[in-house]
Amino acid sequence: MGKIFRTDYRIPFYESDVNQNVKLSHLANVCLQVSGLQGEELGMSDQKVLDDYGLVWVVTDYEININRLPRFAEKISIETEAISYNKLFCYREFRLFDDQGQILVTILVSFVLMDVETRKVNPVIEDIVAVFGGDKTKKLVRGPKYASLQVAGQDKKVTYLDLDMNGHVNNSKYIDWLFEGLDLDFLRQHALRKINIKYNKEIHYGTTVQLALEQDQLVSRHQIASQLGVHAQAEMIWEVIDD
Amino acid sequence: MGKIFRTDYRIPFYESDVNQNVKLSHLANVCLQVSGLQGEELGMSDQKVLDDYGLVWVVTDYEININRLPRFAEKISIETEAISYNKLFCYREFRLFDDQGQILVTILVSFVLMDVETRKVNPVIEDIVAVFGGDKTKKLVRGPKYASLQVAGQDKKVTYLDLDMNGHVNNSKYIDWLFEGLDLDFLRQHALRKINIKYNKEIHYGTTVQLALEQDQLVSRHQIASQLGVHAQAEMIWEVIDD
Repeated sequence: MGKIFRTDYRIPFYESDVNQNVKLSHLANVCLQVSGLQGEELGMSDQKVLDDYGLVWVVTDYEININRLPRFAEKISIETEAISYNKLFCYREFRLFDDQGQILVTILVSFVLMDVETRKVNPVIEDIVAVFGGDKTKKLVRGPKYASLQVAGQDKKVTYLDLDMNGHVNNSKYIDWLFEGLDLDFLRQHALRKINIKYNKEIHYGTTVQLALEQDQLVSRHQIASQLGVHAQAEMIWEVIDD
Repeated sequence: MGKIFRTDYRIPFYESDVNQNVKLSHLANVCLQVSGLQGEELGMSDQKVLDDYGLVWVVTDYEININRLPRFAEKISIETEAISYNKLFCYREFRLFDDQGQILVTILVSFVLMDVETRKVNPVIEDIVAVFGGDKTKKLVRGPKYASLQVAGQDKKVTYLDLDMNGHVNNSKYIDWLFEGLDLDFLRQHALRKINIKYNKEIHYGTTVQLALEQDQLVSRHQIASQLGVHAQAEMIWEVIDD
């Protein structure tokens, strides 16, 4: 069991979509901010990890289960807990609750520690993770098997504002891009119930990526690729919205 | 003199750019949220304006003057004041301060009240604006004369996540798009000192806009157009960053 950190949050207008739901990329961003706040509280901020170890936290996988997305202006609680870690990965859960304490969304994130100089994954360092109290385990969390998509993707050129302070495309942008091939009518008539995302490779400025998509009834499969290979894969499970 | 409302804000990682500065679109979003909070405090929330009058606030112009952009993790204060209004326009100022009380950014916004049904501008209603305490005036704030750009623009297709709850492209997306034609090296080596933006026309889902840009030394001129005409124009003034 890891230490639990909890904070309240209100969904802003500018991060709400046509359906009045929060944008998923924003939820992911806010959650990462919350784990950053926990790190600050426990004396192991992202800045300290960078200064003392030359490492940064990098998301490799998301598994998000959605009962209901928070809506515009809704006040929610976000709880986070470092669940466990193994030699390479740290697993952290975020749980979002409505004001009645009902669970809205659960987000399981896999992180690695990346060396900022070599851009290579560094084995987990006990001194960094100990303060968060997660369990050491040999168990690996595995996402779904992602099929390589053979369909032609639409081109997307990486722009300045896709980049974050690390100089590569921010992981939340990938999430926005996953939605780009989906039709507006489909998005108005369906609710996202589950999404798995796997990040394989950084994307840099000037790259043109291909966003590919295959839809099979209530499952959509997504791929972000470039000449350098596959950067990310995702699978979404949808449900028809009852009127 | 209008009533002043003030709140604190900390710049999140996910809204910071490669230069570790806040993204301008995010500043604009947060400021609009702050004026929304003032409306709630004074009993004239955006929701009330919609429910009681069938109207929404729409930004028509920004004039932003920048001493220094707030940086990642910086704690700032945001102050807002409804300065004045005339028959059609309401003028509101936002002032951003660092923790020493030094002014960082000043944002002057022109708003109109739009009828959500007819999508037409409604004359200013005294009952709505009275609580904010701005002065009635005959004076119109005029931005610069924007030249119509004749250069070919790069195509940009409007996607689902560009839309806000009103079903059109959110005004902050225009701001992001203004930056798209500018080169990364230019953006790393220059600081934005001033920007004027004029919004002419809504942009809807499925539209492909052309983003045009002309650069003349330390001035850049921007235009967002489509087959329907010019949707927005902007002018930015830059300064070389001293190393």
